[in-house]
Amino acid sequence: MKSAANASYTLGELAEHIDARLIGDPNIRIEGLSTLTDAGPQELAFLANRAYIKYLDETRAGAVLVHPAHGEGCPGARLELDNPYLGYARLSRLFDPLYQRSSQGVHPAAVVSPEAHIGANVEIGANSVIDAGVEIADGCVIGSGCSIGADCIIGAGSRLHANVTLYHGVIVGERAILHAGCVIGGDGFGFAHDGKQWEKIAQLGGVTLGDDVEVGSCSSIDRGALGDTRIGNGVKIDSQVQIAHNVQIGDHSALAGCVGIAGSTKVGRHCLLGGGVGLSGHLTLADGVQVTGMSLVTNSIHEAGVYSSGTGSMSNSQWRKNAVRFKQLDDIAKRLNRLERNARDD
Amino acid sequence: MKSAANASYTLGELAEHIDARLIGDPNIRIEGLSTLTDAGPQELAFLANRAYIKYLDETRAGAVLVHPAHGEGCPGARLELDNPYLGYARLSRLFDPLYQRSSQGVHPAAVVSPEAHIGANVEIGANSVIDAGVEIADGCVIGSGCSIGADCIIGAGSRLHANVTLYHGVIVGERAILHAGCVIGGDGFGFAHDGKQWEKIAQLGGVTLGDDVEVGSCSSIDRGALGDTRIGNGVKIDSQVQIAHNVQIGDHSALAGCVGIAGSTKVGRHCLLGGGVGLSGHLTLADGVQVTGMSLVTNSIHEAGVYSSGTGSMSNSQWRKNAVRFKQLDDIAKRLNRLERNARDD
Amino acid sequence: MKSAANASYTLGELAEHIDARLIGDPNIRIEGLSTLTDAGPQELAFLANRAYIKYLDETRAGAVLVHPAHGEGCPGARLELDNPYLGYARLSRLFDPLYQRSSQGVHPAAVVSPEAHIGANVEIGANSVIDAGVEIADGCVIGSGCSIGADCIIGAGSRLHANVTLYHGVIVGERAILHAGCVIGGDGFGFAHDGKQWEKIAQLGGVTLGDDVEVGSCSSIDRGALGDTRIGNGVKIDSQVQIAHNVQIGDHSALAGCVGIAGSTKVGRHCLLGGGVGLSGHLTLADGVQVTGMSLVTNSIHEAGVYSSGTGSMSNSQWRKNAVRFKQLDDIAKRLNRLERNARDD
Repeated sequence: MKSAANASYTLGELAEHIDARLIGDPNIRIEGLSTLTDAGPQELAFLANRAYIKYLDETRAGAVLVHPAHGEGCPGARLELDNPYLGYARLSRLFDPLYQRSSQGVHPAAVVSPEAHIGANVEIGANSVIDAGVEIADGCVIGSGCSIGADCIIGAGSRLHANVTLYHGVIVGERAILHAGCVIGGDGFGFAHDGKQWEKIAQLGGVTLGDDVEVGSCSSIDRGALGDTRIGNGVKIDSQVQIAHNVQIGDHSALAGCVGIAGSTKVGRHCLLGGGVGLSGHLTLADGVQVTGMSLVTNSIHEAGVYSSGTGSMSNSQWRKNAVRFKQLDDIAKRLNRLERNARDD
Repeated sequence: MKSAANASYTLGELAEHIDARLIGDPNIRIEGLSTLTDAGPQELAFLANRAYIKYLDETRAGAVLVHPAHGEGCPGARLELDNPYLGYARLSRLFDPLYQRSSQGVHPAAVVSPEAHIGANVEIGANSVIDAGVEIADGCVIGSGCSIGADCIIGAGSRLHANVTLYHGVIVGERAILHAGCVIGGDGFGFAHDGKQWEKIAQLGGVTLGDDVEVGSCSSIDRGALGDTRIGNGVKIDSQVQIAHNVQIGDHSALAGCVGIAGSTKVGRHCLLGGGVGLSGHLTLADGVQVTGMSLVTNSIHEAGVYSSGTGSMSNSQWRKNAVRFKQLDDIAKRLNRLERNARDD
Repeated sequence: MKSAANASYTLGELAEHIDARLIGDPNIRIEGLSTLTDAGPQELAFLANRAYIKYLDETRAGAVLVHPAHGEGCPGARLELDNPYLGYARLSRLFDPLYQRSSQGVHPAAVVSPEAHIGANVEIGANSVIDAGVEIADGCVIGSGCSIGADCIIGAGSRLHANVTLYHGVIVGERAILHAGCVIGGDGFGFAHDGKQWEKIAQLGGVTLGDDVEVGSCSSIDRGALGDTRIGNGVKIDSQVQIAHNVQIGDHSALAGCVGIAGSTKVGRHCLLGGGVGLSGHLTLADGVQVTGMSLVTNSIHEAGVYSSGTGSMSNSQWRKNAVRFKQLDDIAKRLNRLERNARDD
């Protein structure tokens, strides 16, 4: 595999792929995607954000992907589409070397149990270990150094990058992408206290990932204590995320990097959790809830909307003074009450 | 290995295992554990939280594990125990496939140094690498893809899941559980500045884990700069946790997911750190300190108790107004002082 | 490899190595480094922090590394140097077993593509997988279980510990240290929304690490969407850090554990980010910016200096009262305004 795709398409082919209106020469050859400022004559640029309109007239791009309203500003060929960003997304995979290669089959240095079921056109990298009872459907790619525990099921067209670990009995839907170093199905953090020390509670549930789920590198999704941890269809999970046992994430929600979700919390559909957000255990978040970065949520949220916690950042010298006052805040509020009462009494 | 345990016990056997009082037919066959609402006639449910009493009379469970005070409410057979949650913990392992299988020995695709010492009934998974001088005591299970550096010592009955890394010289106690992708003994973050750039300080210490320690997936515990990083007996560490060089964690403390502890901090015994808690370096936390989720502790805590920082979460529109005021808080406090002074002067 | 270095030097050799002034017997044999309180007669201690002067006169160390101003207080032999901490750093590697061993070459259980270019004195551990087009320069050490994707370039003298993953096309400078379980070059978190669900944007950029970069265990650095994610020379990154696509980190900056940086943010040179700091996307931080632990930065910072957010920690009972008041803070400020107005009107 070459890391550069060496892919090349005519502008006409690209227009057809995303059903865009082509203004210009359909035979222009496009070898890659780039930004308006960096693109050269063999590249397609896109305008998806009004802030970049100013770069439009000077772009050297071979063609530009734009909303029809901005088409006039293009100095050369263009593809017009109502959602240029979506068009860019759909074209991007044509230029990704990961998607432009044929299956390498099962590497001789992979260790595949004779009791595993491996579909057609499956690639398994060197030094991956596939346990008994595993089912890997057609067209999957398993990177090198992966460990797939007993009885896991991986849906068609899924891709596990290198050094991914699935514990036993994990179910992965179709077209999933699991990035390197992520761990699915480790034990939830469950212990009973006997008065002196912690007694482990075996985690007897599993993990189910829906279709089109993506999990970032070094993220972990723990198996359920009883019953499964469930990640819905189309859920996108970034790197360094921790999802505890029996959490449920509704379809098409997106979790940015470093999010942590405690046990048994249910996140609705189409939710957005910013980077570093923390959710306490046993909460329910309604569909469409958005939480801004590094906020901590300790109560259920029953209405869609944007939620936040924390303070803004400031210079440390300013912050120190204010942080001291935060510790006096209840006292400040009571003194204000008193002054108001006295003012009224006067 | 099957991911389902296929374990099956009579109610009498389970009662004896946890020394519970059995009311009902000792021959009832139990094939799994479940919740009051989900359990079927072949399963044992438990009541450990008063909030679930309402589900007791309608449970279809074959038997229920309860406190004697709630036994009367059970519709069928029951096991009575003063601490039903602890009883559940102790029974749970009987149904865990990880504990119900015999050792598979050393896989032919494991790479074990001839200078390593491997005990009896040790299992080593495919593609694990065991360096010279390593001692693995009886009954340990090393998953696939692990890397065990030179001169590590692993106590009897410990289990390392897949893709765990131990750097050289790490000492692990008995019955430890290290989850997939965790890294023990990486370099602490130590550098001296020469005025222009950072000069690395070799991390010459080690890491010592006590007995019955559990470490979650993708967590990291760094080796000491000089002297060891020390994790006490019975300490439970969740996933995505970072423990820096020369930290000490007292016996039986528990650290939830995404906790980060900076260098040389000493956490006492029986402490509880909530998810995402941060501790600055060189602090001391007394025994029995609890810190709530995502709090940052920058000073030592000398008394047991519960500690917190941060603000609660709220709607973003409400939060924006309040966060602006936080930046004015010192000014607000001073103006209040002035008003009070003036009121007194009147 | 023995995990203890078994290194031994005369005091004269050590003095010469760091160009220090030796007062005492140059033939004293030193077998390790230690603290003033723990050192024995075969060890060299150092005094780098005034807080430890009190331990100087009772140290049993064979010799002490000190600033000339404190030399008089040493009970025995000493090495005098203007920056003793830097001297300690430079001596420390002499005692590190990782640096005191000769290359073991390519392990027979490593899987190295015939189309990879492997330099002189390169060590590759068992079960590592090196793809086609990879270039590994002279003197590199690749630990066991690593996965190096197609067309990666690794500069001379770099060290990858066990289970490191480099995706395709990652460029690593000279003398880099990548700790176990870290992942470089995973996909950035980029999706377009089609109104119903997320459409993946292929991440077509790469990752470039400068010279002398260190990355901690289980950290992840994502590849660019278009163009590269760039980590400057001499940048030190701790464990559990997440760096998103197209981030740029200036030379000689240091990022402590659990930092998270969102997409396209540019951090200047010589910046310091405390543990758990979060930076929103598309920001610019000037050279020399320092952010204290667990602060969230949501706006660009144009001047060097120290910045913070959050509240200090306190007892939970005190905190609860103040946190409630935080939600009333805008109201409190308005009521104060009103009182002041009324007071003026009186």
